[in-house]
Amino acid sequence: MSDPEAPRTQTASNRTGSDEAPANETPERVDQALQIAELEDAWRRTAAELENFRKRCARDMVRGREQERAAVATSWLPVLDNLERALEHASSDPDPDTVVEGVRAVLAQAVGVLADLGYPRRDDDGRAFDPAVHEAVGTVSGEGLVPGTVAQVVRPGYGPDDKILRPAAVVVATRAS
Amino acid sequence: MSDPEAPRTQTASNRTGSDEAPANETPERVDQALQIAELEDAWRRTAAELENFRKRCARDMVRGREQERAAVATSWLPVLDNLERALEHASSDPDPDTVVEGVRAVLAQAVGVLADLGYPRRDDDGRAFDPAVHEAVGTVSGEGLVPGTVAQVVRPGYGPDDKILRPAAVVVATRAS
Repeated sequence: MSDPEAPRTQTASNRTGSDEAPANETPERVDQALQIAELEDAWRRTAAELENFRKRCARDMVRGREQERAAVATSWLPVLDNLERALEHASSDPDPDTVVEGVRAVLAQAVGVLADLGYPRRDDDGRAFDPAVHEAVGTVSGEGLVPGTVAQVVRPGYGPDDKILRPAAVVVATRAS
Repeated sequence: MSDPEAPRTQTASNRTGSDEAPANETPERVDQALQIAELEDAWRRTAAELENFRKRCARDMVRGREQERAAVATSWLPVLDNLERALEHASSDPDPDTVVEGVRAVLAQAVGVLADLGYPRRDDDGRAFDPAVHEAVGTVSGEGLVPGTVAQVVRPGYGPDDKILRPAAVVVATRAS
């Protein structure tokens, strides 16, 4: 970047030594006039650099998001391919156990893709209920249930505590009324 | 942003009217010295603004990518939920046709997610072979096949011609040798 402490004004001073001053100007005035011209130029160039950088930053932001979107979308293609393979296999071998096994493998693969993206599947069963990472969709009381804990995960959550992608929907254990 | 054309130096000129000049300085020299101080200050502030903007841009880039990753990852959660539902359903109703139907619906949903992200599934069957958007994995010749066209899509491609996410793997029709 342009450095305001650069020896640019120094250069201006040096130059007056070899430049010939007009008759009606003292060497000091010529010196200062040159310094002013140099400073104005330096300021203008820094301002132009700032303006260019703003534009470039805006472009890079759009491109960065597009790259990220493409990269994340690409990581799901194997899941789609395997879903198709499972369906093709089912049409030739309609054994339900085989189909279910294939789909279970695809689900595990999909969970793995999310984990690789930084959003592992959460295991909230039995944990203390925390509204920051759990969404209560009901309550239940009964023997063997610890009040204030997650009795059942209705829909799993994804992402670590500090970067929740989706909170788990849970049924919370309460004291019998 | 700081404007190099701003009337800042003008202000410096005006100020000399009210300031008292030292005995050994002419009003013109004081005027120029003030102008130099003002310009140096303006340059310094613009340079600082540029430096701050560089740092902010770098931070915003990281944050923008994270937001995009989270948004795209979130769009896949319904696909995972429905895969799980299909498996749960299969355990209570092991009719293979029902299972296959459920999985087929999930696959259609997944293809829809990719389309919403800007990467529709490609339909390359019968199109003219184009190495820019097709990956040839084999050739075939035979009656009814038009040489130079895609005879079979082995693995579907995703994304429009100008934004291919993955090219289709295809078998290309050739002239019988």
